[in-house]
Parts: sequence; structure tokens; C-alpha cells
Amino acid sequence: MVISTIGGEHYLTPEFLTYKDKNVYDFIISRYNNVSFYATGRDAIFRIVEVVRDRILWLPDFLCESIYKPLKKSGVAVKFYHVKDDFRDQGTDKVRKTDFVYIINYFGLVDEALFRFENTIVDITHSFIIFDNDFNYTGKISICSLRKLLPIPDGALLAGYVKIEPTYEIRQSFVEKRTFGLLSRYYSYLNKFSSDENFYVLKEAEKLLDQSGTYGYSMSYLSQNLLKCVDFQQIAQKTKENYDYLKMKLKKHYPGFSQYFPVVFSSREERDNARQKLGKKGIFCPVHWDTSFLGVSNDLSDRIMSIPCDYRYGVSHTGKIINILGG
Amino acid sequence: MVISTIGGEHYLTPEFLTYKDKNVYDFIISRYNNVSFYATGRDAIFRIVEVVRDRILWLPDFLCESIYKPLKKSGVAVKFYHVKDDFRDQGTDKVRKTDFVYIINYFGLVDEALFRFENTIVDITHSFIIFDNDFNYTGKISICSLRKLLPIPDGALLAGYVKIEPTYEIRQSFVEKRTFGLLSRYYSYLNKFSSDENFYVLKEAEKLLDQSGTYGYSMSYLSQNLLKCVDFQQIAQKTKENYDYLKMKLKKHYPGFSQYFPVVFSSREERDNARQKLGKKGIFCPVHWDTSFLGVSNDLSDRIMSIPCDYRYGVSHTGKIINILGG
Repeated sequence: MVISTIGGEHYLTPEFLTYKDKNVYDFIISRYNNVSFYATGRDAIFRIVEVVRDRILWLPDFLCESIYKPLKKSGVAVKFYHVKDDFRDQGTDKVRKTDFVYIINYFGLVDEALFRFENTIVDITHSFIIFDNDFNYTGKISICSLRKLLPIPDGALLAGYVKIEPTYEIRQSFVEKRTFGLLSRYYSYLNKFSSDENFYVLKEAEKLLDQSGTYGYSMSYLSQNLLKCVDFQQIAQKTKENYDYLKMKLKKHYPGFSQYFPVVFSSREERDNARQKLGKKGIFCPVHWDTSFLGVSNDLSDRIMSIPCDYRYGVSHTGKIINILGG
Repeated sequence: MVISTIGGEHYLTPEFLTYKDKNVYDFIISRYNNVSFYATGRDAIFRIVEVVRDRILWLPDFLCESIYKPLKKSGVAVKFYHVKDDFRDQGTDKVRKTDFVYIINYFGLVDEALFRFENTIVDITHSFIIFDNDFNYTGKISICSLRKLLPIPDGALLAGYVKIEPTYEIRQSFVEKRTFGLLSRYYSYLNKFSSDENFYVLKEAEKLLDQSGTYGYSMSYLSQNLLKCVDFQQIAQKTKENYDYLKMKLKKHYPGFSQYFPVVFSSREERDNARQKLGKKGIFCPVHWDTSFLGVSNDLSDRIMSIPCDYRYGVSHTGKIINILGG
């Protein structure tokens, strides 16, 4: 069993346990207003009901189930606009002035035209890493799943024109499992991923979260401190190098920059073949996102694949991927 | 609320996450035969039923409930011998050649005469730290609760003339809670113990263990790797310096050496007063052990107190304790 050598969960290393001068925590506090720290993206998203209330919330039809699920639970009335395979939107002409528009920054690419609307909620999980402010669009409300892109057990941010506080304390069992898993994963990584102790426990944590019907939990004290242990510029710079290298070597690419390099294939079959080929070599490329839960097929969803290119990797990793994909 | 500045649980620091050349794991493997790694001391102790079987096991009447509980559960027939207030034993003349004798090394002090018996099980939790081999007595079977003396979420060893394997996989929820707790505690420690996130979760972990009626669980892959991150000589040397300093400054002391410096007061009242005085200053001195669960009062148990003097501390800590106790 190849557990993974590229992709998959982050891991906690000794380097990411010592406070840094220029750290992610300070960056967040200085850049965003009225920041609240939540356990997960889902916990934060659920709480935007506080501002949306009885208005309409327009969602893109290319999105993650973990965005949709808490919104459905919150009772917010939603409508959809279409996202085309160049990540541009269609159908937002029906949006009224008082409506809210949920904008996802896709791999650092966002349709600027969407910012003509007053009530924007921007998902910046893919663009958080962008250190050039001009391209990191924020909304009236901004949301970021921090735990997805940093070596921390839990964490998401909700920020904007008003402070929206978490409802509950921490997601105890979830964050305990993830702390144990991320630390155990570090030693597995040092030993060529020979132990799967982390694999099962991290999977269980996600299952717990998926099964949870309650949202609005806080980020742990531990993870808030771990945010102070990540040198923001350093990981952003490293990610940028990887992204640019992939961009240079792979023919098809989109403008943008994130911790994932998106590749859109000409068919689902071609995409699945590529994923399988990479998977056999221990390279795990996720699909952002499988939208089958919406009941309608999205063209992008069928053909997209994300190549991990975050701070953990270098040319030895991206080069391996390029060799397999054949440029 | 003073959570603690001296004593209480260990914490995981970045230093204790990097592999060391001369580490505790290698020390254990080189020094002991047929080593098995268990989740807790209780898990290891329960499994000695494999060798004791239908023989009598003699226990000292000065012991921890967590030694007694799993033995009772295992169905082993026990008898008691007395331990006097100089830590010497009494009443072992009734022990037969085929019986087993459980010997606790008290703070590095053990009655050599007990080793005239063939079937010895020695609890080396207090003496594990002794690097001078002459004083670190081992038995036919040796047991050590590693998690009590090192910065690891779980871990105990069982070693001796025969290999006794764990029955179950890891104590999942217990080790997850402890990993989260020990790491969160590190950041609380850095911030003058201002967060109690670790306190409650570590307490819960012990409660889980206390409520568990099943024993024989394995040590996690994570903690086995963390054993490789502790420089044995370094922590032993530091502990020795602290122990010797207390020995020099406090009038009453016993020969021996461990991660705790035992003080025996003239009365229970005097002991309790001293503990309270120290507690108010954030210095947590445990009692090894309260034997009230046995139904008979032990003279030592009523009057003893343990001063933590492990690798985490230095003269600034021990000096504070001496000032409060008044030498």
C-alpha cells in the first residue's frame, strides 16, 4: 500500500512548533478586520447566517460539499450561478442589490466582475497564500479554512465588516485526533511513510466532522499558537516557486497562484487515468471538487485535478510529477 | 487559579521531537531483554499474569492503586508484605521459593535483600533514570511507566526473561487526548501557564484510563518515535543535579536518586500543610502514594510528599521550593 509521498495531510514538524517573528497569526490580525477563529471552514461558513439572515445567498455551482452542507443546515435560502470551465461566472445578472454572493477564489483566480456586488462573501482558502495584496481579494466577509493549507490540527478564519463569534468551544475529539495524527504522520514521513497510524486516525477525524450536524465551534488554543509558528513569507515563497515551476513545464495552465496547481483535462476518463498513474507512485492529487452532491453535473468538476505544490515540496517532487504527466 | 509552574504533566517541546543519537529507545533495547512496549504501566502490569499464573504474588503494602487494580483484574492471587518508613521491607520471611515478589524501587532505593528471591518483578519507574547500572536493579521481569517520566503521550515497558506481547492495539482516545494535551501545555508553559486547555484534556485522559476495565494495550508508533528524541544522558544528568541540590539543602533525605525527591514529614498534618503552602505558589508535589484504597493505613503513605526535580527544572526552581519549605 502506497500511503502517499506527495499530497495528503500536512504533518507537524519541530520547525513548525517554534514561534516566528513574521508569522501567520500576526499577518491575519494585521490584514483582516474583526477576525474570529473557528475549528473548521464548515464551522465558520455556518455562522454567516448571522449576516445573510433572510436574504438570498448566491452560490457558484462549482463548490465543495463542505461549503454547501453547513449553509443548508443554517437555513439560508440559496440560488446558484454557473461557473464555466475557464473559472469565469455566468448567470449573475439575476442577482439583486440586497442579495449576498458567495465567491470562491479558485486557485488564485477570481472573476473581478463579481465584486460589483455589495454583499460579497469570499472564500479565500486557495488565495490566502498570495502575499501580493493586489490579487488577494477580500469580501465584505472573508472565509478561509486554515487547517487545509497549514500544519495545524484545526482552524479557519471568518473576518469582515462585523465580528461573528463562534458559538461553541473546541471540536474536542476532532482536534485531538488531528493533533495525534499530524504528529504521528511526521515520523511516518521521516521513515518513508512506513507507518499508517496517522492515516486511519486522520480519516476518522474527517468522518467525525462529516457526521457532525452542529457547527460554529472554536479553534483550539494549540492551533492558534501554531499559527504563530509559521513563517508566512517563507511558505508562500516556497509554494510560489513550486507553482511557477509547474506552470513553466506544463503546457496548460490558468493565471493564478495557490497551494494547488489545477490541471483541466479534455475528459473525465483522461483525468482519472492521470490520477491513477500518479496515485500508483504515491502522488495524491485531489479533485477540487466533485460536485455530484448537487445532482447536476459540472463540466469543470468532471475534468479537473489539483497538483499539490505547497511549502513541503521542491523541484525533486514537482519534477517527478511532470515526468509522469509527460509535460 | 494557579495551574502549576512546577510539577504536573510533562509537555512536548520542539527539542523533544528531533531524533537524538544517544536516545532512550536505544538505551532500552540495549539494556533490557525481550522488551515489549505498552500504552501504560497498568497495561504492562496486567500482562504479568502470563508468568505468575496460579502462583502467589507478594505485593508491598506501600504501592500505587494503578499497580493493584490491573493485578486484581488479572485474577492473580496476591499477599502483602510490609514496607517500613525507611522504605525497608518486613514480613517477606513467609515468601516461598515458587512465589513471585513485586518489588518497587522507591525513589532509587530498594532493599537488596529482596533479590534473594528467584521470581522478582521489579517496578523501575523511579529508578529508570539512574544511569549508573549498579543501582538500577532489574528483576526477572522489569516494568516501567515511561509516560510518567518522559515527554511522551503514552508508553510503558515490560521486559525480562521472556517476551510478553501486548494484547491490543493502541489506547486510541487516551493517546489522542494526551498528545493534544501535552502539545497545548507547551504553549501554555511558554505563556506562564495562562491557558488551561491542556489541564482539562489531560485530566480527562486519566479519567478514561481509570474507568477502563481492559488492559494490555500497545504503545503508539508516535510515542515509540518520541523515545528516540530524548537524549537519555542529558535528562538524567539534569535530574541528578536537581536531586543533589535538594539533598544538599534539605536536612532529611534518603539515599537514592529519582525524578522525585521524597520528603517524609513527622505527621500527616505537617505534610498536608507543606503541600498546601507549595500549591499556593504553583508548585505541585504529588503523594506517592495514597494507599487508602487498601483499607489499611500505611505510615509512609500518610507522611510522604514528592518534590518534582526532573529535567525541566533547575536551581531557580529547586531554590524556590527550598525557600518555601525553609530547609
